[in-house]
Amino acid sequence: LDRLRRAEVVVYDDLASRELVARCRPGCLRLHVGKRGGTRSTAQEEIIRHLITHGRAGRRVVRLKGGDPLIFGRGGEEIAALAKAGIAWEVVPGVTSAAAAGAAAGVPLTHRDFASAVVFLAGHENPRKTGPLIDWSAYARLKATLCIYMGARRLGAIAAELLAGGMEPGTPVAIVSHATCPDERVQFLTLRRLAGVKPDASLSPAITIIGAVAAHSAGIRAVVRKIKPAGRGRSRP
Amino acid sequence: LDRLRRAEVVVYDDLASRELVARCRPGCLRLHVGKRGGTRSTAQEEIIRHLITHGRAGRRVVRLKGGDPLIFGRGGEEIAALAKAGIAWEVVPGVTSAAAAGAAAGVPLTHRDFASAVVFLAGHENPRKTGPLIDWSAYARLKATLCIYMGARRLGAIAAELLAGGMEPGTPVAIVSHATCPDERVQFLTLRRLAGVKPDASLSPAITIIGAVAAHSAGIRAVVRKIKPAGRGRSRP
Repeated sequence: LDRLRRAEVVVYDDLASRELVARCRPGCLRLHVGKRGGTRSTAQEEIIRHLITHGRAGRRVVRLKGGDPLIFGRGGEEIAALAKAGIAWEVVPGVTSAAAAGAAAGVPLTHRDFASAVVFLAGHENPRKTGPLIDWSAYARLKATLCIYMGARRLGAIAAELLAGGMEPGTPVAIVSHATCPDERVQFLTLRRLAGVKPDASLSPAITIIGAVAAHSAGIRAVVRKIKPAGRGRSRP
Repeated sequence: LDRLRRAEVVVYDDLASRELVARCRPGCLRLHVGKRGGTRSTAQEEIIRHLITHGRAGRRVVRLKGGDPLIFGRGGEEIAALAKAGIAWEVVPGVTSAAAAGAAAGVPLTHRDFASAVVFLAGHENPRKTGPLIDWSAYARLKATLCIYMGARRLGAIAAELLAGGMEPGTPVAIVSHATCPDERVQFLTLRRLAGVKPDASLSPAITIIGAVAAHSAGIRAVVRKIKPAGRGRSRP
């Protein structure tokens, strides 16, 4: 908030909070750089051009994102471009979406009895990716909590890959859509049911939590008691 | 901050920010429940007793922790106890230590070219643990970024287990001690060197980031240029 109040330029995403953008000082240049399917890489180049142009002009620039900028936020690419251009930067860490989703659903991402580790994975990988692809079967065997970022349209396929890799069909799952927003929605199901879930764009943005923690805490059972009984895809009112 | 300002009781840890505790209203009961080695489980029972006693008395209680309460924060156990006692609760998510460490070191925890996943693991597992133990060799093969929470005293042993599991000896490592604090310190090394690191209590609390991202971004190379050349355990000034 301190950095925003002192910014001369703010470059913000679709997922950045509008309440925060509204706290900028009068006269601050506000650049909306929402990304949408198909124009992703063009948009990223434009974003970096904005940061460098205003940075070189000596302006105080805030790049505002939802979540944490260094966890599936492409912040690494942006600071690399700034470093290459000789522009000083700092990163203010944020609340990553999986933490917001855990809080919304009352699901602890780690638990000393059920999960000594938590994994954040990109469900929707960069289609022009040159680096390592995700080997879902390796994650199926970890006994860690898995949090799937993005990829709400691929949930059925991901569940099928985890099942093929040996993960228990009864593994509890929580899908948290629009965490922390007024239309926040939490659904509890099992991995077996997740494999049959049809692609649903209305779920996005969503975090899917897979693992024993999604059902084993008394905290979450208390939430479950408040939701409608039985049926697939139960929602918290 | 809103919740803290309205709190009648605040129950806070050693790692909670004193600046935040200072923002409580006058007359707020401040209970320091710092945990220290050896008394951990007694302290946890006491914490829960405080929460339930004040909660049952109808007081507005804030349980203040450093980091995110549901990621290695035992928040799951605390909300489970509250749910069992019939006391209403909400979780305000936080900036988990690994995100703070990534920001401090300029290391992106994920990167579309180098890491499609990031794992948070507890280096120091509960000695009386009944749940699954960590199979480090399974993590050695993931090609994901590993962030080790706690366990600064076990880093050499963890590195040895990862090497035995087949992880490349040249894998880049960043140890971030006291992230976001005035005595913040970042050291860059390799997994091979980490295996020879002696237990060092002055590093705690520390997050250790293991994976290609710890060296491959231009952002981090810019940081590395600022630090002293050569030698094991280089620190940022």
